[in-house]
Amino acid sequence: MDKLVYSFNEGSKEMTSLLGSKGANLAEMNKIGLPVPYGIIVTTETCRQYYEDGDAVVSAVEDAVMEKIEDLEKIAGREFGDPSDPLLLSVRSGAKVTMPGMMPTILDLGLNDETVNGLARTFGDSKMAYDCYRRFIRTYSRVVMGIDRSEFDAVLNALLQSRGLSYVVDLDTAGMKDVVHAYKRLVLAKTGKEFPQSTRTQLRSAVKGLFDSWYSEKAMLYRRLHSIPSDMGTAVTIQRMVYGNLGANSGTGAVFTRSPITGDKKLFGEFLTQAQGEDLVSGLRTPEPIEKMAEVFPGIYKNFIKIVDLLEKHYTDMQDVEFTVENGRLYIMQTKSAKRTAVSAVKIAVDMVDEGLISKDTAITRVDPMQIGQLLEKTFVKMEIANTLPLTKGLPSSPGAACGEICFSSFDAQARVAEGRKVILIRQETSPEDLAGMVVSEGILTERGGMTSHAAMIARGMGKSCISGANIRVNEKEKLMMIAGELFREGDIISIDGTTGLVYRGRHRIEQPKLTGDIETIMEWADKVRDIKIRANVDTAKDAEQALQFGAEGIGLCRTERMFLEDDKMPLIAKVLIADSQNERRAVLDELYGCQKEKFIELFRVMKERPVTIRLLDPPFHEFFPQTEEEITALADELGMNRDAVRTKIRMRHEFNPMLGERGVRIAVEYPEIAEMQTHAAAEAVIEVQDELGIQIVPEILVPLISMSEEFKYTRRVIDNTIETVFEKTGKKFRYKVGAMIEVPRAALVADRIAEKADFFSFGTNDLTQMTFGFSRDDTNHIIQEYREKMIMDFDPFKILDSSGVGRLIRSAVKMGRDAKSNLDLGLCGNHAGSPETIAFCTKLGFDYVSCSTYTVPAARLSAGQAAVRMKNEMK
Amino acid sequence: MDKLVYSFNEGSKEMTSLLGSKGANLAEMNKIGLPVPYGIIVTTETCRQYYEDGDAVVSAVEDAVMEKIEDLEKIAGREFGDPSDPLLLSVRSGAKVTMPGMMPTILDLGLNDETVNGLARTFGDSKMAYDCYRRFIRTYSRVVMGIDRSEFDAVLNALLQSRGLSYVVDLDTAGMKDVVHAYKRLVLAKTGKEFPQSTRTQLRSAVKGLFDSWYSEKAMLYRRLHSIPSDMGTAVTIQRMVYGNLGANSGTGAVFTRSPITGDKKLFGEFLTQAQGEDLVSGLRTPEPIEKMAEVFPGIYKNFIKIVDLLEKHYTDMQDVEFTVENGRLYIMQTKSAKRTAVSAVKIAVDMVDEGLISKDTAITRVDPMQIGQLLEKTFVKMEIANTLPLTKGLPSSPGAACGEICFSSFDAQARVAEGRKVILIRQETSPEDLAGMVVSEGILTERGGMTSHAAMIARGMGKSCISGANIRVNEKEKLMMIAGELFREGDIISIDGTTGLVYRGRHRIEQPKLTGDIETIMEWADKVRDIKIRANVDTAKDAEQALQFGAEGIGLCRTERMFLEDDKMPLIAKVLIADSQNERRAVLDELYGCQKEKFIELFRVMKERPVTIRLLDPPFHEFFPQTEEEITALADELGMNRDAVRTKIRMRHEFNPMLGERGVRIAVEYPEIAEMQTHAAAEAVIEVQDELGIQIVPEILVPLISMSEEFKYTRRVIDNTIETVFEKTGKKFRYKVGAMIEVPRAALVADRIAEKADFFSFGTNDLTQMTFGFSRDDTNHIIQEYREKMIMDFDPFKILDSSGVGRLIRSAVKMGRDAKSNLDLGLCGNHAGSPETIAFCTKLGFDYVSCSTYTVPAARLSAGQAAVRMKNEMK
Repeated sequence: MDKLVYSFNEGSKEMTSLLGSKGANLAEMNKIGLPVPYGIIVTTETCRQYYEDGDAVVSAVEDAVMEKIEDLEKIAGREFGDPSDPLLLSVRSGAKVTMPGMMPTILDLGLNDETVNGLARTFGDSKMAYDCYRRFIRTYSRVVMGIDRSEFDAVLNALLQSRGLSYVVDLDTAGMKDVVHAYKRLVLAKTGKEFPQSTRTQLRSAVKGLFDSWYSEKAMLYRRLHSIPSDMGTAVTIQRMVYGNLGANSGTGAVFTRSPITGDKKLFGEFLTQAQGEDLVSGLRTPEPIEKMAEVFPGIYKNFIKIVDLLEKHYTDMQDVEFTVENGRLYIMQTKSAKRTAVSAVKIAVDMVDEGLISKDTAITRVDPMQIGQLLEKTFVKMEIANTLPLTKGLPSSPGAACGEICFSSFDAQARVAEGRKVILIRQETSPEDLAGMVVSEGILTERGGMTSHAAMIARGMGKSCISGANIRVNEKEKLMMIAGELFREGDIISIDGTTGLVYRGRHRIEQPKLTGDIETIMEWADKVRDIKIRANVDTAKDAEQALQFGAEGIGLCRTERMFLEDDKMPLIAKVLIADSQNERRAVLDELYGCQKEKFIELFRVMKERPVTIRLLDPPFHEFFPQTEEEITALADELGMNRDAVRTKIRMRHEFNPMLGERGVRIAVEYPEIAEMQTHAAAEAVIEVQDELGIQIVPEILVPLISMSEEFKYTRRVIDNTIETVFEKTGKKFRYKVGAMIEVPRAALVADRIAEKADFFSFGTNDLTQMTFGFSRDDTNHIIQEYREKMIMDFDPFKILDSSGVGRLIRSAVKMGRDAKSNLDLGLCGNHAGSPETIAFCTKLGFDYVSCSTYTVPAARLSAGQAAVRMKNEMK
Repeated sequence: MDKLVYSFNEGSKEMTSLLGSKGANLAEMNKIGLPVPYGIIVTTETCRQYYEDGDAVVSAVEDAVMEKIEDLEKIAGREFGDPSDPLLLSVRSGAKVTMPGMMPTILDLGLNDETVNGLARTFGDSKMAYDCYRRFIRTYSRVVMGIDRSEFDAVLNALLQSRGLSYVVDLDTAGMKDVVHAYKRLVLAKTGKEFPQSTRTQLRSAVKGLFDSWYSEKAMLYRRLHSIPSDMGTAVTIQRMVYGNLGANSGTGAVFTRSPITGDKKLFGEFLTQAQGEDLVSGLRTPEPIEKMAEVFPGIYKNFIKIVDLLEKHYTDMQDVEFTVENGRLYIMQTKSAKRTAVSAVKIAVDMVDEGLISKDTAITRVDPMQIGQLLEKTFVKMEIANTLPLTKGLPSSPGAACGEICFSSFDAQARVAEGRKVILIRQETSPEDLAGMVVSEGILTERGGMTSHAAMIARGMGKSCISGANIRVNEKEKLMMIAGELFREGDIISIDGTTGLVYRGRHRIEQPKLTGDIETIMEWADKVRDIKIRANVDTAKDAEQALQFGAEGIGLCRTERMFLEDDKMPLIAKVLIADSQNERRAVLDELYGCQKEKFIELFRVMKERPVTIRLLDPPFHEFFPQTEEEITALADELGMNRDAVRTKIRMRHEFNPMLGERGVRIAVEYPEIAEMQTHAAAEAVIEVQDELGIQIVPEILVPLISMSEEFKYTRRVIDNTIETVFEKTGKKFRYKVGAMIEVPRAALVADRIAEKADFFSFGTNDLTQMTFGFSRDDTNHIIQEYREKMIMDFDPFKILDSSGVGRLIRSAVKMGRDAKSNLDLGLCGNHAGSPETIAFCTKLGFDYVSCSTYTVPAARLSAGQAAVRMKNEMK
């Protein structure tokens, strides 16, 4: 076993993995001479060892701690467990990643029926000593023995009530002692054992309890929500206690070195005299703004200002600092990089460059790309919503905040909106029939479906807020929604936040933050440093304009089937697919041709010379077909076809596993005339727009769902021949590319052969994830949930690219592809494309572009900048 | 470009890839001094070049041929195109693989209006010369210009009729000339051009025509049926003509050096005097048995016997030899390894070892493993069925021949069988409700479904003949089946061959070939040389007995869900899966426990100490649930549950893509109590049977559908804990293994991590193929058909393992797995396991075993022997 325990003087701020971020920063502050209560740290490695080997590790830790604790004893001039003048300990857990409020702290460890008197003597304050003992029993019993805090509160309240008192502070020393006795009796009753009097036992059990707390439900939930790996474990920091509650000359406080809300360069924080850390947040006393401290502790304040200034410079980032004053002596309890709003993050990053504190490269990395979206989306007023308990949570499928009256059908939604009201559409899941209702709604909330469900995709396309797969029960017929046993009826008002997936009761204020000049500055810096291009997944000219405004450099995925949505041409697609003969099919395709060409022309006019990737008709067959009897009848009538014939044809097309059925290139191979029509329309559109604007367009045609080189070759021949015909007919030419979508595992495995024929690869990570895992996007949401709860998965692979499995396929395909064709263009256009991890992954592999949803483009630009900076740093 | 054309004296029998097997063997015979009409060969490479570059290649070939043709001219003492005494050519196509009757031959090339007179002069026979010209025009026009043979026949018949004649041989010279003129007029009428008089043009066009014939519909169909790659192309052999029809001193014949039916060592063949090769098969004249030749051509016969004996020894295999006698001179026209029945193949292989002609290793390779099945299955009488035109074809889903009256429902089938009749059950596709009907039927024929459809799997399990996904239209309601426009009604008799997938009209005789002693000998030789074990996929004790009889060395896949089929416990499985709570679930599992344990006990009693791999519950969720309203009601009643509740629960379980849904390990993770029950039952069964028989059993538990190491780890913990509990309870122990099924692409990609925790891997190639290609087994049959027709795929990857894609995944997983754990056991248990290619693949990778269906075990043993021999040879 490696070294289990480090002293502060053996650590530094670089050692966060081993010592946790709290421990590492304390060691760092100790190193640079700042006043911290000295201590030691049990490493995260030790914690992980404990998960493997169990209690044996705890015993070893106990021995190692007892050895090191002498350092503390020397500095404090007290001994641990000494009844006359005991050294008391603060035992705090802390992982590499901070999980605010999730991991417990045990203060005043080392108190028992004897040492409590020693403490009283030392500080000349019996009440304070028993107050500490009381707090210690309560916290320790919760962490180590799992006794709920409320049980202690009940005991305390009963006691206070019996004495006609309101607050614990109103008790005198005898009262405090009574509370301690009552607490001890509670422990005995709950556990059958006396509260431990051995300080060694206390120490040992506390360490074990903190290790175990890593797997508390609360902590696991937090990690799941924040995609934090669960195998890192926590460190445990053990420091000597200092007290902010000793008297008027003591106190405690917390500050940010700048404003976490606006980013203004101005100390931001609060303090309380005669108080411990927990009093700051308890709400019993109102803290004073930090500036007041200059009046109360003028000398200490001056010193403190110097220290926080030094900390900010030392860490070259805004710090979140906690401190305690014990009898006129200042101690820094913790420093960490401060959480901040997007606005603040951006302003601070730009300011710090101006101040010469950080480089532009560093500034780029200081803004969380996931926050950039906040600057572009409607959000609830943060200060208000932060204190609101959500009703439930679903998948954050399309960002943005929305409120409205709930409706359960497209019809009701339209009716209510016609009356001038705002509505949220609630459905079990949506289908194309709900489209009209979705258009008029503020947002959509569904019971079923994943991040790529119909509702999610359409909502994202429309820039509407959507939460799918929420933990609600919807009865569309009765117009009822049940959340955690509570019924909601049509007209009830709710708020949904598509960015977080949270659903709230009632109406909440919505704000549209402004884009400041600073964000533009950061974006420019990021754009300069990155090589990878950011394109958008866009299907219409209108969306294309929006994408360009956000800085998209092209379209990486134009889903042609969606181009027919707008003009209600979808039934014609169904007609193509159920046509009896090629002639019949061609006749319908002729009908579609005009619409297809017009859409391309509109798109090229907006995109001009920028690249546009046109994907041939792709989605599963059955998506074009209605399912219910009524819908089938309607379709038949609309198409002027025999109802029975349509029904039979649709039945014959039934697929057991449509995701693995007739899709993508398979449609192009079976009905090459469809690919011909689409290519023809694109080619004619290119020529028209080239002539009209006097520009050069290089369209990229993308063949989806390739699994073998031969099917790409086949389809490419159809495309090449069609374009050749247009060249001959018009006497005009243009350059173009034909690429393969790599979204089936086999395509990645034979990438070398495909690359021989393809001009570019576009990785479709949604399907690639689906097939590599064998997880249906539509069905396995609950399995992934289950897996995450059972800690089988650390993350949802449909949200974060699975680098060890799917990523391995991509890496190998990139290598094979580039080996076969060195100038092969590489792009990625799945749902993952907007995520920082994926952009970093693609940057490292030398991708030419990623293509993400319109609203993610700014974040992607920033992520790409950050990835480039990190690459530069790694190469140094 | 490489050398386009080889002379016979530049070739040898090893050069079949380049020269085609016909050409290579002719060159070989020339080399060893046998009399062949000398010639030259245009290589297959040239042919492939032609497909790439087109007519330019033909011109180059023409030049190269004209250069080489001088050799022929010298030997023949005649010149090509010389009007007075022309050299005529036989131009024959021939690929590396023989495709009997599929590729055309053009004889007498070089005839035109002038040379025909030269030919007449040379042989002093004008009628014969014009007969040759006639035949040449007809064949050439068909191959080069695509004019149908029937058009020439119509012309000829009109002419014969007008003269009151029946046969072309009845014509005199003038009549023959008239036929030639009539043929030439036909060509002019059909093509607008005169029949080419330039012999150079004839030669050039013939070569091009033969190249093109590789892609004739007929040839493509043949290749598709025999899984022959379509990219090999054909060679073209050009020889000087010899004539078997010159007079009484001429003739032609064909022999097998042994009996292709029984394998007896006795010349087997026929001959005709005064005839060309095509007369042998035309049916106009009845050939004489070859022995008669001793009387007609005594000297030549003696010489011929020597030659065929030499050929057999030279090739150390039974030969199929064609010969021609021209004016008392013997020419060998072709020799090739002879096709033979399974019985013959086995006898010849064993005999040749006895004769010291070949080694045992070679003998093993001389029997086609796919034929071994023939020795175990009912078959139609070969000589009868060979001449019967099938009605249609489907997927050969379960082998064996069967005849009977057709029925369209389980009910009708049972009724008819009760009347003492034999029936074939016809369904669109089968479902569990058809089980009773399947049990009583001789065989099953379905319109839909693949090789792994319900019908196919059940039929294979019952050893019943089955053809699925046939090109038929079934109307179950009207009790009608349509095949190629023809209607079949209930009671009509058909025959189906589940081995070939062919459907025949009427009743055909069925025979059950005997296993001779020779096959046992071959099997023993094969068993000795192979290392890889052959196991069977078996679910019941009865099947296990059968598997052992066929030489299975263990069970490689026991599908536990099928164990409940026999005792009608399937509804209980459904009940487990829709239980509301763990308690409710456990109660049902307790009910199932006894049955599960009993089944395991029966299985272990049969298998004794042989390995048995028990796969935990696997199939998609929905397979356990009824779909229609009536079935749901029935299930609810049977389970004594509320109908609405059952319906709702089943609806909630609906999956869009069940193949990618809740299956395999996902069930074990969500409901670990199911895995516990199964493990518990297996463990108790092991202990009981060990005690009862005084043996050691090492059960292997297989966790299906693994995609990440963590889910294997989780399930393994459940299994280990359960077995540990049984150990503690019983005080007894046994060794056991826990393995992961590698059938999801991701599992192969993270095989190293899984191997750390697993004792063995079992590759499930059905799902691996399905997910690697993104092809649903249930849905994409027609797409694969389409792809094969469009030559995008050379084979069906669900039948032949896709070595470049799926195989690459397996190879990499094997390497990663063994690197992580050197003693990792490796098995493969998909549908591919019985195929020679897959067994060779697994042998090379050092697999421990493959596991195939019971009836495939003997073939697999032989395939494994062959793979071992080939490995030995490669290492020499």
